[in-house]
Amino acid sequence: MYNSDSNNLKCRIVVDAMGGDFAPQNAVTGAVQAYSEKKNFELFLVGKKTAIKKVLSENKLQFDDEKIINADEVIEMGDVPTNAIKSKPNSSIVIGANLVKEKKADAFVSAGNTGAMMAASTLIMGRIPGVGRPTIGQAMPNETGISTLFDVGASVDSKPRHLLEYAIMGTIFTSEIYGIENPKVGILSVGEEESKGNEVTLAAAEMIKKTNLNFVGNVEGRDILKGTVHVVVCDGFVGNILIKFGESVLDFLKFKFKEYASQAFVNKMKIGLVKSSMKEILKDFDYQEYGGVPLLGVNGISIIGHGSSTPKAIKNMVLRAYEMYEKKLVTKIENSIKKYSNIN
Amino acid sequence: MYNSDSNNLKCRIVVDAMGGDFAPQNAVTGAVQAYSEKKNFELFLVGKKTAIKKVLSENKLQFDDEKIINADEVIEMGDVPTNAIKSKPNSSIVIGANLVKEKKADAFVSAGNTGAMMAASTLIMGRIPGVGRPTIGQAMPNETGISTLFDVGASVDSKPRHLLEYAIMGTIFTSEIYGIENPKVGILSVGEEESKGNEVTLAAAEMIKKTNLNFVGNVEGRDILKGTVHVVVCDGFVGNILIKFGESVLDFLKFKFKEYASQAFVNKMKIGLVKSSMKEILKDFDYQEYGGVPLLGVNGISIIGHGSSTPKAIKNMVLRAYEMYEKKLVTKIENSIKKYSNIN
Repeated sequence: MYNSDSNNLKCRIVVDAMGGDFAPQNAVTGAVQAYSEKKNFELFLVGKKTAIKKVLSENKLQFDDEKIINADEVIEMGDVPTNAIKSKPNSSIVIGANLVKEKKADAFVSAGNTGAMMAASTLIMGRIPGVGRPTIGQAMPNETGISTLFDVGASVDSKPRHLLEYAIMGTIFTSEIYGIENPKVGILSVGEEESKGNEVTLAAAEMIKKTNLNFVGNVEGRDILKGTVHVVVCDGFVGNILIKFGESVLDFLKFKFKEYASQAFVNKMKIGLVKSSMKEILKDFDYQEYGGVPLLGVNGISIIGHGSSTPKAIKNMVLRAYEMYEKKLVTKIENSIKKYSNIN
Repeated sequence: MYNSDSNNLKCRIVVDAMGGDFAPQNAVTGAVQAYSEKKNFELFLVGKKTAIKKVLSENKLQFDDEKIINADEVIEMGDVPTNAIKSKPNSSIVIGANLVKEKKADAFVSAGNTGAMMAASTLIMGRIPGVGRPTIGQAMPNETGISTLFDVGASVDSKPRHLLEYAIMGTIFTSEIYGIENPKVGILSVGEEESKGNEVTLAAAEMIKKTNLNFVGNVEGRDILKGTVHVVVCDGFVGNILIKFGESVLDFLKFKFKEYASQAFVNKMKIGLVKSSMKEILKDFDYQEYGGVPLLGVNGISIIGHGSSTPKAIKNMVLRAYEMYEKKLVTKIENSIKKYSNIN
């Protein structure tokens, strides 16, 4: 069984086989693919055992039967998160989060109901001591590489102290995972000047200044794609609206190209000629390529994926979970939060 | 002089000749162009008379000397708005706003210091009775046409009642100016469900529900370009970040195309082939084409332009001011605000 080997020092990753619009197919094949690429972790699949075994056999995949953990219930996409984690104790999401809580696993990965995954991770795994609000980060392309945005929807109505926590956790994630040394941190605001902002950002700036994070002050909406800073800090209300707007830019462009092509045959020909180039250029806009997003600040590794996650996205989520384990992100966050606990 | 004809019923528009990075050149030529296209309003230019006359003569433009109102001072782009309107009483922005206040003009148009223009309009012209916070609207392209976003930066930390006011004013502007009958209104939030939002949006939704505006509830970041609603209501902090992010998408795309072209000669050729198509497709993203943005809720017509406004942008701003006058927007806003004054 999953906790049989008590001397096991290998990273143990649990994947929610029932999570996502194409579950268990995409979740199972993606997870097994990650495992076959990088064998130095233990993989567990949680979900309806018969359904999982069906996918494995249909796809001719080898997988240790003992590493399939049965979960009779499924939290559906439309379920109300906090209700669901109470009313469905035998769901894959609740069982997965409990495995991490009970130290039987190090990481839990799911493309299921985002709210339920956040609630289960926060309430079951629990928060790292000193963390007021866990945060979800999203990587975004920019002119110089990549930047991360914290928070993109774990929490609305954040207090100044929470923005400080996002800055701390975002810095650790961005430096460890993207290899950016001493990443530049900015607060998303309505002007670069120190006086610009709302009540929360103005107070948060004063707090972040007291740390030794590489804080540059305010950045504006246009600085995100320009790449002015590596870590963009904001309330989850703003961040969530922004990433959903950003995602829709790709759809809007596709729509405009189609519309243009339909106007004249010569347009259609022109677009046809550069279709592959277009795809190449626009792939950075396809946020699904980035796989899931990490929920930082909880006592364990929790990665949340898009409902529409492809097997590739699931694979990337599992590999990201492994990387977070290997780089001891949870411990590093705990230490850094402790270091700045006096800033209030 | 500008107030000589007391029986004058023509719309009187004052343009800040000193406003913008290319002033007085762009402001003067753009304003005179608007006038020559549509002679049924009176145009006044406010600014340094000698500089204005120089531009007029250099560009061989005819303009009645009596309609140039001298202003010795200029509020610079870097000046602190509220200080500047006090310390520079003879600036073009302060004089322009005063002309509207004193009913010597109906509209004031400037591409100068945005903050100073907002402060002068709000403090000098004054607010329409019942309006807590004036609002700036921005038009955005979407898959079905156009939508407007209120507020995009006049006010941060808006209260629920202010969002209601943005919904009222945005509805009037969008129906009158874009000819959309009974425009659909949505509150920008983190989910479509009624329970999703922050404290302010949740309370604002309850208030807007009590009106007979065409309120559909929450919309998400992705709904803006999709065109789910015609009027998107949000706090100026969110709106400002969003439109600046939106503007930067065009720059980012240009950057990506350049980068792609530089990778191989064949890429460069492909991009060359579709360069004009690209421009055509992406022109909707060029927010500068939309000209200036209206500041609604003040006692008069106030249009604020980008610092980088072209003569064409200035011309469009003047024509927009005329349209707002012709359609009696100020009176309509006053009546609608009065109608809903009991919602608190």
